[in-house]
Amino acid sequence: MKYSLILLFVAFISNAQIKKENLNLMPWPQNITMQEGVFALTKNFKVNITGDPNSRIYVGTTNFLRRLDGRTGLFLTQGFVTQLNEFPEAELQINCSKKGKIDLYEDESYHLDIQPNKITINATSDIGALHALETLLQLLQNDSNSYFFPTTSITDLPRFTWRGLMIDVARHFQPVDVIKRNLDAMAAVKMNVFHWHLTDDQGWRIQIKKHPRLTALASDGSFYTQEEIKSIVKYADERGILVVPEIDVPGHASAILTAYPELGSKIIPLTNGNSEKNREAIALSTYGIERNAGIFNPTLDPTNPKTYQLLSEIFDEVCPLFPGAYFHIGGDENEGKDWDSNPRIQEFKKKNKLVTNHDLQTHFTMKLVPMLKKHGKQLMGWEEIMTKDMSKTAIIHSWKGPNEGVPVGQSVANAAKNGYKTVLSNGYYIDLMQSVNDHYLNDPIPKGSNLTADEKSRILGGEATMWTELVTPLTLDSRIWPRTAAIAERLWSNQEVVDLNSMHKRMKTVSFRLEELGITHIRNKHVILRNISNNQETRALEDFSNVCEPLKIYKRNAGGTEYQMYSPLTLFADACTADASDALDFDSAVNKYLENKNTENQKRVTDFFRKWIEMDTNLIALSANAPLVKPLLPLSKSLSDLSQQLLLVIEMKQVTNTTSIKDLLEKCNSKEHADVELAVYNSLKKLM
Amino acid sequence: MKYSLILLFVAFISNAQIKKENLNLMPWPQNITMQEGVFALTKNFKVNITGDPNSRIYVGTTNFLRRLDGRTGLFLTQGFVTQLNEFPEAELQINCSKKGKIDLYEDESYHLDIQPNKITINATSDIGALHALETLLQLLQNDSNSYFFPTTSITDLPRFTWRGLMIDVARHFQPVDVIKRNLDAMAAVKMNVFHWHLTDDQGWRIQIKKHPRLTALASDGSFYTQEEIKSIVKYADERGILVVPEIDVPGHASAILTAYPELGSKIIPLTNGNSEKNREAIALSTYGIERNAGIFNPTLDPTNPKTYQLLSEIFDEVCPLFPGAYFHIGGDENEGKDWDSNPRIQEFKKKNKLVTNHDLQTHFTMKLVPMLKKHGKQLMGWEEIMTKDMSKTAIIHSWKGPNEGVPVGQSVANAAKNGYKTVLSNGYYIDLMQSVNDHYLNDPIPKGSNLTADEKSRILGGEATMWTELVTPLTLDSRIWPRTAAIAERLWSNQEVVDLNSMHKRMKTVSFRLEELGITHIRNKHVILRNISNNQETRALEDFSNVCEPLKIYKRNAGGTEYQMYSPLTLFADACTADASDALDFDSAVNKYLENKNTENQKRVTDFFRKWIEMDTNLIALSANAPLVKPLLPLSKSLSDLSQQLLLVIEMKQVTNTTSIKDLLEKCNSKEHADVELAVYNSLKKLM
Repeated sequence: MKYSLILLFVAFISNAQIKKENLNLMPWPQNITMQEGVFALTKNFKVNITGDPNSRIYVGTTNFLRRLDGRTGLFLTQGFVTQLNEFPEAELQINCSKKGKIDLYEDESYHLDIQPNKITINATSDIGALHALETLLQLLQNDSNSYFFPTTSITDLPRFTWRGLMIDVARHFQPVDVIKRNLDAMAAVKMNVFHWHLTDDQGWRIQIKKHPRLTALASDGSFYTQEEIKSIVKYADERGILVVPEIDVPGHASAILTAYPELGSKIIPLTNGNSEKNREAIALSTYGIERNAGIFNPTLDPTNPKTYQLLSEIFDEVCPLFPGAYFHIGGDENEGKDWDSNPRIQEFKKKNKLVTNHDLQTHFTMKLVPMLKKHGKQLMGWEEIMTKDMSKTAIIHSWKGPNEGVPVGQSVANAAKNGYKTVLSNGYYIDLMQSVNDHYLNDPIPKGSNLTADEKSRILGGEATMWTELVTPLTLDSRIWPRTAAIAERLWSNQEVVDLNSMHKRMKTVSFRLEELGITHIRNKHVILRNISNNQETRALEDFSNVCEPLKIYKRNAGGTEYQMYSPLTLFADACTADASDALDFDSAVNKYLENKNTENQKRVTDFFRKWIEMDTNLIALSANAPLVKPLLPLSKSLSDLSQQLLLVIEMKQVTNTTSIKDLLEKCNSKEHADVELAVYNSLKKLM
Repeated sequence: MKYSLILLFVAFISNAQIKKENLNLMPWPQNITMQEGVFALTKNFKVNITGDPNSRIYVGTTNFLRRLDGRTGLFLTQGFVTQLNEFPEAELQINCSKKGKIDLYEDESYHLDIQPNKITINATSDIGALHALETLLQLLQNDSNSYFFPTTSITDLPRFTWRGLMIDVARHFQPVDVIKRNLDAMAAVKMNVFHWHLTDDQGWRIQIKKHPRLTALASDGSFYTQEEIKSIVKYADERGILVVPEIDVPGHASAILTAYPELGSKIIPLTNGNSEKNREAIALSTYGIERNAGIFNPTLDPTNPKTYQLLSEIFDEVCPLFPGAYFHIGGDENEGKDWDSNPRIQEFKKKNKLVTNHDLQTHFTMKLVPMLKKHGKQLMGWEEIMTKDMSKTAIIHSWKGPNEGVPVGQSVANAAKNGYKTVLSNGYYIDLMQSVNDHYLNDPIPKGSNLTADEKSRILGGEATMWTELVTPLTLDSRIWPRTAAIAERLWSNQEVVDLNSMHKRMKTVSFRLEELGITHIRNKHVILRNISNNQETRALEDFSNVCEPLKIYKRNAGGTEYQMYSPLTLFADACTADASDALDFDSAVNKYLENKNTENQKRVTDFFRKWIEMDTNLIALSANAPLVKPLLPLSKSLSDLSQQLLLVIEMKQVTNTTSIKDLLEKCNSKEHADVELAVYNSLKKLM
């Protein structure tokens, strides 16, 4: 009896055989083959580790077991994995030939083989094995009763060695737990570089023991202690992630100059006093923590030896906290205005034959190279550091593109051609709230570029950049995820993996699974909507948030002064995200309808209109007791008005006034309300 | 024109005059009077501080501004408050006559006066002022367009000086950010003691630099560094909260003995060896971190001088981390089994004339008194430490009650009568998942007790205890909140404030507002349900979770071995909470219907039945692709089956088989499924 039941069970789950295209793997592996059959998961499932791995594999395997158990509720009997060869008969065997080193160019490959009774992971190092465990979690399938893995064989390795995420913790501080959960998410999509933007005009976020003024005067009390930094670096290491710190100099210096104004470049001409005094009067009192967003003048004085002494002492403390070989010194957006107006600095340039401010900045940056080299670090900087005299050992971080008047791909290609190693961030600016499609199709190797193999090899990879002018711990995750998972795929998977439909389908599941790691992008949206609703029913707000997107590409907070760094980011725009979900569905409904105007296709479209008309009514009702709903009403009304007209046209075949309907459409294109735009505008336009 | 608009505006909002009983204040203040009119909030609202406060008022005021701004979206212009008398003309004036000290018996009173153009907070110390700011936030009102405070005058102070929350971080570790957000929530309801249960059988959670073995061997890597402890103590201080650490000895010692087995009491008789060897053979190998829940034997050896040396060294490190005057040494649940079976310990008892194990434990505890006194600390312990020889300076933490065979209130009354200061936790065990009503009506001063005024004054207050056998960081908040807000009211407000309806109404708003502080009780429920649903529609699961409650009073995980400390707590029972919301609403519908069976009242009841019938259908559909839904189906079916029968009886006036309907009802009383019970059972019974 027992036996026949087992047979039945096996027969049942093997019927559930799934196809390769149904797997929700992201990043997509380099090589995958599937056989018939499955590996059935039971509570006795165990893991055994052999070989010579770094101990991070124990943390990784224990976390793997807890995630698997939390997802399935199987009550797995294996608790903490703490040593080699604990269960030689275990169904999952992990073998690593050597200890992984957290560095670029490390072998991250793995081979994962799932047979009906046994799963094997073979990896050169534990880092590859960690990747394999993430793949295995993504492979988990279920039917109505049970969980299983499809019998599959995967051989995988990354296309690029630098698969980064930058988080700006200066503009809005992000506490330790926020960083840690994002490291978990990075590891889940096989990213391996966390670039930590630790200082900027709006704050100095790292404790410097020799210079407590930096955090005392320029952090508003929000900074990481060195012990916290170490704990994050350790956490990253356990997940195979390299941490690259950034101390942004010589520009973006409002915070550092708040603590050390005497190192600033600005001269204030005194109205009373002789001319000699004028020239020496440093504007001690004019520096303060910046509260706005934008590009600001405060800049370190590159002619003052004390500037280098301070930076050297800072580096002496910061470098040892980060075992990795790379150190980012920023170097961006220094417009040199305070240099231009400072006669002493002009004199220095003349004396040292530095023609432009770029030359002066290179003079400055080159002085940092040996300070970092002393600690075994290579200097990295934003692309502005690349001038003819810059050391070829520097890594160029390419960020400029069409927004800055530079053609797509030009900046990364230039760096590679000039002999520099380079990392691409242009096209991966996730703070700009663009569609994931834009980022996904942005390849680090510029399309149509005539780079040699050697030049291409200097393009290390890419990095998503999360600038936080408008982002708090409440909203950070929804700005990074799930779009960054698609960027991770671009950087890991084969260049040919570019199917947008497949990406969207897989990203949906990845997005859902990110909650397992503590990522708050879904849950916190509801928190914001509950607040806006004033504890009333949030359905109408949810519906509206699913067709609205925050204003894109610097349109929100234009000029940088509408929001201060302490302004509320608990508004409707903060609940909205790029790629509004109903907008995507509506667009596909419209496309189908335009192909074939049958009843079914028509209904899909008109159902949306009915939903939006009702939504507007509900929002109006809601607003009676919720002042934060009021700003949404004009845009909601526009959508409702147009929906009513389009219903008449489509269902009643009524000929309406074309001008008036076009006016209504254009009202739906407004960017004047609540810092959001209607993401269905283009689809609506198609219906005209 | 401008003037008449302002007049209109004032006229409008003064119409919104609200009544005292509509205020959602919790804890309810001692004295409150309301006048006509309101204080209208604008973006120019500013705060000014005068007097001689501790600097924590700056942190508190800045946080107040940010919360107010996040809630209203007004873009308040005032950023960080950092000094006295910054805006002498500000509309909110806070005056504190002295620096508050984080200690018991501190003056926490405040006077809050809201006039149409001015708000004044007068407090003896900044601690009272912080309470006033919380009251002010709770007073915020709105109409459709604007936010305002009602003109109100409040004089307030706490009834008890000890208003505590204990969190057990040993059984399930709770990271720093989890503790911090709960400190925020405590402050929001004016609680002032955080009791930190740092060690137990399941883990040692505090770094001891001289004894790294403790965390290396007995924490699974999850513990607080001393710097983290300091950062939490500072965070608590900024919120007016005293932190009382607990190192639980001599029982609950599995973790400490995992690190130092030679200090254990257990003897293992050796099968080979002479009798002398038998007596000395300490069971070094038998201690390990406990993975189950329950009461265990591992106990420190009170006859071994090295035990005291270790504890003394531990206290020397722990005490200075906590500036408060109180230190909890646990002392509970030591059954002394390993003492009984250890001949050397028996000999010691005889020699020292210690008759019972209680005497021996007192001997042990009394040795700790001077170790703590050296650091200026008073010893506190669970009520088992109270024996005839225990120092009267000790504070007795009363926890036993009917569950332990002790009448309600007896244990706290005994302590007070015996001359001890005492804190009540019996009746505040929030881990038992009982209704808030039970906790709310549980007064620290036992009802009908014949205590003298002096004895009563020794009852310092009470403390909610959050034991974490079945609680992870994902679910902790939903186990503590919102019920603990009602306990906070019991400990702060007048004894006469006992109206359950009022409490429930106010608690609803408090619960909603806790999200502002980062409390995750609402959002994380949806996270768990999404996981259970396997990323399908969660509505049916939500509906079911609103009529189910986790099994109460040790019924879940009976025996303590079904769940290990690493078992999944991502199940349906973990999404459910005490006081299931629909169950409360259904009960009120049933009561109304039984009073008057008119159509409207009938519909309110039958609507629930229809909802549950549909819910069951949807859960069955959901379960086809979600194995975690399957265990819920039997109970959902029972509810649906009974609903169908009751619909027939109520609507069709059909006479059904009474036996069969009673059987269906009893099936709804099952506690066999998914670790939950149907919270509507008693209301359904009323309909029979």
